[in-house]
Amino acid sequence: MQLGLSVSDSDVSSFTPLVVLELADDTKAEAITWLLNRIRGKQQNGGAELLVDQLLFPAQDGQKSNQNVFVVGSTLQRLLKGAEDVGLFKEFQDGTMRGFTYANRESFKDFYGDGEGFLSDAECQYIIKHELDTLRAKNEEHVPGYPKVKLYPGKSVVRRLQSKGVLVQYFPLHNKEDLKRLSFSWYKKIKLSFQPLDDIRHYFGEGLALYFGFLEYFTFALVPMAFIGIPYYLFDWEDYDKYVLFAVFNLVWSTVFLEVWKRCSATLAYGWGTLSHKKAFEEPRAGFHGALGFNPITGREEPVYPSSKRQLRIYLVSVPFVLLCLYLSFYVMMVYFDMENWAISIYNENPNLATGILLFVPSIIYAVVIEIMNLLYRYAAEFLTNWENHRLESSFQNHLVLKVLVFNFVNCFASLFYIAFVMQDMVLLRQSLATLLITSQILNQVMEAFLPYWLQRRRNKKVHKRMRRMMGDKELPLLEQVQLETEMNTYLGTFDDYLEQFLLFGYVSLFSCVYPLAAVLVVLNNITEVYSDAFKMCHVFKRPFSEPAANIGVWQLAFETMSIISVVTNCALIGLSSQVKAYFPESETQMILIVVAIEHVLLAFKFILAFVIPDVPKHIQVKLAKLEFDSLEALKKRKILEAAET
Amino acid sequence: MQLGLSVSDSDVSSFTPLVVLELADDTKAEAITWLLNRIRGKQQNGGAELLVDQLLFPAQDGQKSNQNVFVVGSTLQRLLKGAEDVGLFKEFQDGTMRGFTYANRESFKDFYGDGEGFLSDAECQYIIKHELDTLRAKNEEHVPGYPKVKLYPGKSVVRRLQSKGVLVQYFPLHNKEDLKRLSFSWYKKIKLSFQPLDDIRHYFGEGLALYFGFLEYFTFALVPMAFIGIPYYLFDWEDYDKYVLFAVFNLVWSTVFLEVWKRCSATLAYGWGTLSHKKAFEEPRAGFHGALGFNPITGREEPVYPSSKRQLRIYLVSVPFVLLCLYLSFYVMMVYFDMENWAISIYNENPNLATGILLFVPSIIYAVVIEIMNLLYRYAAEFLTNWENHRLESSFQNHLVLKVLVFNFVNCFASLFYIAFVMQDMVLLRQSLATLLITSQILNQVMEAFLPYWLQRRRNKKVHKRMRRMMGDKELPLLEQVQLETEMNTYLGTFDDYLEQFLLFGYVSLFSCVYPLAAVLVVLNNITEVYSDAFKMCHVFKRPFSEPAANIGVWQLAFETMSIISVVTNCALIGLSSQVKAYFPESETQMILIVVAIEHVLLAFKFILAFVIPDVPKHIQVKLAKLEFDSLEALKKRKILEAAET
Repeated sequence: MQLGLSVSDSDVSSFTPLVVLELADDTKAEAITWLLNRIRGKQQNGGAELLVDQLLFPAQDGQKSNQNVFVVGSTLQRLLKGAEDVGLFKEFQDGTMRGFTYANRESFKDFYGDGEGFLSDAECQYIIKHELDTLRAKNEEHVPGYPKVKLYPGKSVVRRLQSKGVLVQYFPLHNKEDLKRLSFSWYKKIKLSFQPLDDIRHYFGEGLALYFGFLEYFTFALVPMAFIGIPYYLFDWEDYDKYVLFAVFNLVWSTVFLEVWKRCSATLAYGWGTLSHKKAFEEPRAGFHGALGFNPITGREEPVYPSSKRQLRIYLVSVPFVLLCLYLSFYVMMVYFDMENWAISIYNENPNLATGILLFVPSIIYAVVIEIMNLLYRYAAEFLTNWENHRLESSFQNHLVLKVLVFNFVNCFASLFYIAFVMQDMVLLRQSLATLLITSQILNQVMEAFLPYWLQRRRNKKVHKRMRRMMGDKELPLLEQVQLETEMNTYLGTFDDYLEQFLLFGYVSLFSCVYPLAAVLVVLNNITEVYSDAFKMCHVFKRPFSEPAANIGVWQLAFETMSIISVVTNCALIGLSSQVKAYFPESETQMILIVVAIEHVLLAFKFILAFVIPDVPKHIQVKLAKLEFDSLEALKKRKILEAAET
Repeated sequence: MQLGLSVSDSDVSSFTPLVVLELADDTKAEAITWLLNRIRGKQQNGGAELLVDQLLFPAQDGQKSNQNVFVVGSTLQRLLKGAEDVGLFKEFQDGTMRGFTYANRESFKDFYGDGEGFLSDAECQYIIKHELDTLRAKNEEHVPGYPKVKLYPGKSVVRRLQSKGVLVQYFPLHNKEDLKRLSFSWYKKIKLSFQPLDDIRHYFGEGLALYFGFLEYFTFALVPMAFIGIPYYLFDWEDYDKYVLFAVFNLVWSTVFLEVWKRCSATLAYGWGTLSHKKAFEEPRAGFHGALGFNPITGREEPVYPSSKRQLRIYLVSVPFVLLCLYLSFYVMMVYFDMENWAISIYNENPNLATGILLFVPSIIYAVVIEIMNLLYRYAAEFLTNWENHRLESSFQNHLVLKVLVFNFVNCFASLFYIAFVMQDMVLLRQSLATLLITSQILNQVMEAFLPYWLQRRRNKKVHKRMRRMMGDKELPLLEQVQLETEMNTYLGTFDDYLEQFLLFGYVSLFSCVYPLAAVLVVLNNITEVYSDAFKMCHVFKRPFSEPAANIGVWQLAFETMSIISVVTNCALIGLSSQVKAYFPESETQMILIVVAIEHVLLAFKFILAFVIPDVPKHIQVKLAKLEFDSLEALKKRKILEAAET
C-alpha cells in the first residue's frame, strides 16, 4: 500500500491511517476501552489484530468537537493475511487470476520484497472493513457500560454498535496524492479517450468501476444510434413516417447491446479478480431486529423475525401503498393532459410567440413534478422497505429496487404510453418526450453534482477556518482531513446512478423511433454525467468502501426487462404508422395479425440469442476451467500422497 | 454391498463380480496382460486397485464363444475410498446430506462395522466405472501389441480402447435377488400406490429414478385435467364452443405444473445427495478425434479439433439437412391433406360404414408415417451429431437434443397447427388429434417394450439351451448370467423416454381444449408406460450404469418452452372461438387486440411466476446453507489453529 498521508503526522498516529471510526460523543469510557481492546486483540483470542489510535482535536473556544474519533490501520502482514480471509483474487505469475493465499504470496505477480504496494489502498480498506465487521461477540452478554445493548455470541459487534447508535459511522480516508493523480487522468483534462477504469477500481473498488464502465459502454453504444438519428431530425424524415426502419434498428440494438455488455463485464470482472469471487456468508443487516430465537443455519441464538409477519407487512401495507402511489401518478398525468389542452386552446385562440412558448410549459411543469414525485417516493420506499425488516441486505435491496423501479417506470413513461397508444398523437409524443428528457437531465445534473458541490464548498471553507483558529499555524493535515471528511455527505451507492441510466435507456429504447434526437441528447448527457459523477465521487462525497462486484447485478435484469418491453412497444409503434397501414388498405385485421406474428418471432429470437451467446467470453472460460482443473489435480495429488503415507 | 450372486460360483471368481468387461475376441495377449495389470495395480503407481478375473466359458462344439470376458469387483475399503473420489453425498448423523469422506465414515448414518451395506449396488458399480474411466495413460506411447493405438499421457485408457474397438463393452451386472424384490414392489402387483422411487434409485441410479419420478408426477398432474375433460366429452360441450374455460385452465396448469416439478425434483435430488454433487471434470467423448495438439486447459498433448471446422460442419451440413427434413415433413403433411380430401369426397359420394371407416385411414397412415420419419431422423441426427465431432458428451447431447426436438415438434404438430390456424376447422382438428395421439401411443408401446421383450425372450431361450449343452448338469449361474446379459440390448439412456413424454405434453397443453379427452388418453398411456418401462428396464435391457442427476436437465427447458408455446396457442384458439367472437360483433380488430393484450399479460405473469417461486424449497435451502456455513466455520477454525502453530 502506498503511504499517501504525510509521515510528518507522526505526532497524531504512528501508522498509515486507513479507516476512520467515529463513536458517539457521549460513549461510555468502558465501552471504548473494550472496543479498542477487541480491535487490537490477537486473532486466536477473537480480536482483529489491527492498529487503532485516537485523534486528539485541540479544544476550541467553548465549542468542543467530538473527541471519540479513531483512525484504524494495520501492519502489512496482517493485511496480506486478511486478503486471504476475504478471498481476494490476484494475478498469478502465469497470468491467470487466483485466490490469494499468504503461503503462496511470492508466486503472485507484482509481489516484491515484503509485499509493499501489492494491495491497493481500496483493497486494504476493504480488508480492514471486513475484519472490523467480523469482530464477533464472545461471552460478553452486553456492551460494557450499556446493559441494554445485548450481544449474541458469534454476531458482529460493529453492526450491533452501529444499529444502537454507539458507532456513528466508519469510513475509509481519501489518499490525497492518489486522488490527485486519479482525478487528473479521469476528468481534469478534456480528451477523447476511455476512462481509467483500472485506476478507478484501484481507488474506489470494483462496484463503482463497473458503474463507470457501464456508463461508458452505454454511451458508446448509443453513438451509432445518435448518428442515424441526426439525419432523421435534420431532414424532417419523421414527418413522413419513416420511423419504421428506425424502430427495427432499435429492436436489434437493444438486444445486442445487453448481451455484449454481459461479456464486457465478465472480462472486466475477471481482470479484477471478482468473477470467481464467492460471496461471503451474509450477516444480518445492521437495522434488523426481532425477538430472540435460534438461527436454523448456524444454530446460534440471535434475533429472528417471522417471515409471515414480513409477508403481511409487504402485502397489506407496502403493496397497497405502491398501488396508491401509482394511482396518484396517473392522476397527475391526467392533470397534465388537462393543462396541455388548456395551453393548446389558448394558443389556437391567439397564436403568437408568448402562447407558443406557453405550449411547452405544461410538459416542463409535468417533468419537474415527475422528478419531485420520484424523489419523494424514493424516501418513502426506503422507509417502507426498512420497516419490512428484511434480515439480509440483499433481500432489502431487491425489495427496494423492485418498488422504486415499478414506480419510476410508470411515473416517467405512463404519459408517453398514453399519448402513443391511446391518443395516437405522434407530434405530441415527440414534443412530450423531448421536454421530459431535457428537463429531467438538467434537473438531475443540478441535484446530483452542482448542488452538493456548492454545499460542500461552503462547509469546507468553514471547517478550514475553524481548524486555522483552533491550531494557529501548526500544520496538522491529518486532523484537518479527518475533520473535513467526517462532515462530508455519505455516498449511498450506485443505486440512483443506475436508476438514472435505466430511465434514459427507457426513453431511448421505447420511443426514440418517433424522436430520433433522443439518442443524441442521452449521449450528450452521459458525457457530462461522466465528468460530474467523477467529480462528485472525488470531491463531494466521503470515500466509499470498495465493494467487490462481478456484474451490475439486478440492473442487468432491469435493463433486459426494459429491452423486452421495448420490442413490444416498437412493434406496436410500427403497427400504428400510416406507412405500414398503407400496405394493408382493406384489412386492418390482417395487418395486426402480421405485426403480432413478427413481434412473437422477434421475442423468440431475442430469447434464443440471449441463450446462445455465452455470457463469459471463450478465452476467460478457458482460464476459469484451467484454474478448476489445477485445483482438482492438486487435491488428487494430495490425496494420493496422504494415502501413501498411511 | 449385498452379495446378490451366489457364492457357490467360487470356482469362477473369488469376489462379488460387479462389472463385466468384454474385450474383442482377437485382442492380443500382451494388451490383455497390460490392461489387467493396470486395473490391479496400486493407486500410487497409477493403477485402479480393483479385483478382476477372467471368465472361462467351456469350449463348445466347434462354436467357440468369446473368451475375453472379465468380471471386475473390489474390496470394500477400496469402494469406500472411491466413494470419496467420485464425491458421493450421503446422509450424515444429523440428517443433512454431506460429501462422504473415508476419514469421517463412522459419522455417517447407516455406517456400521466395516461399512457392509453402506453403499448400494448401483453406487458400487458407478464407483468402479469411475475408477476404470479415470485409469490414465502414463508414459506408454501406445497400447502394447497395438503400435497404432497411440496413448496420450493423462488421457483415459478405457475411452481409448473403446473408441478403437479393443474394448467391446463394459456394463454392470444385474443382482438377481435385488431385482426380484424391486420388480415385485414396482410393477408385479397392480396397486394404487406410488412407485418405489428410492428403491429404483438404489438399483438403477438417480438419472433413471428421476425419469420415473417425472413420469409419475406428470401423470398425477394430468388427473385433474382428465376429470375436467370427461364431462366435456360426455355431454358434447365442445360442440358448443365451450372450450374457452378449458383453455384458460390449460394455461394456468402448464405453468404451475413445471414450477412445482422443479421443487419436487430438488427435494428428490437433495435426499439422494445429488443436488450439491459437482460435475466431475469432463473427459472428451470416446468417439472424439483430431490432430495432435495441446489442450489449453490441462496443457497436455491430446487430439484437438478446431471449433471453426465444427462450426462449418454444423452450419453448412447439419442445418441445411435439418431444414431439408423439415421441408420433407411439410411435404408429407400436404400429401396427407390431399388424402384427407379424397377420403371425404368418397364418403360424401356414398356415405356408408366402409367409407365412414375410410375417413380415419388417412390420419392413421399419417400417424404411422410420422413415427417412421421420427425414427429415421433420430438415426440421421445421431450420425450427423457424431460427425460434427463434439469434444464433450454434454455438447454432443445438447446438439442432438436440439436437432431431434425441432424436427419432432414440427413433424408431430405442424398438421395440427395448420388445421387449427390456417384451415380453422375445429372438427377436423379434434379428429386428427385423437387419431395421432392414439396411433402413436399404440406404436410406441409396441416398439418400445413388446417387440424388444419378444426378441429378448427368444434370445434367452437360445442362450439357456446353449449353456445347458455346454455344461451339462453343472450349475454355473454366473457364467450363464454373464452370457445372457452380454447379449442383451443396451439401454441408450432416458432420451427417447423423455422425448415421448415431451410430445404427449405437447398434445395435451397445445390442443387439449378442443379435444378434452386427450388428457384422459395420456393418463391411460402413462399408467401402462410405467409398467412397460419398468419391465423393460428390469428384463429387456442390460443394466445401465447409474448416472448422478440433480434434475431432468435440458428437458426442463424443453418442457418450459413448450408451455410458453402453449400460452400462445391457447390464446389464439380462444380468439378463434365463435363464443368469443360473439362478444365483439362489430369490430374483429378490437377482439384481436384484446386477445393479444391478454396473451402478453399471461406471458409476463408466467415469467414473473417462474422468477418468484424459488426453485429449491425453503427447508432444503436452509439445509444447504447450514452445510456451507459449517464448512466455512471448519475452514476458519483450521486457519486460526495453523496460524497459532506457526
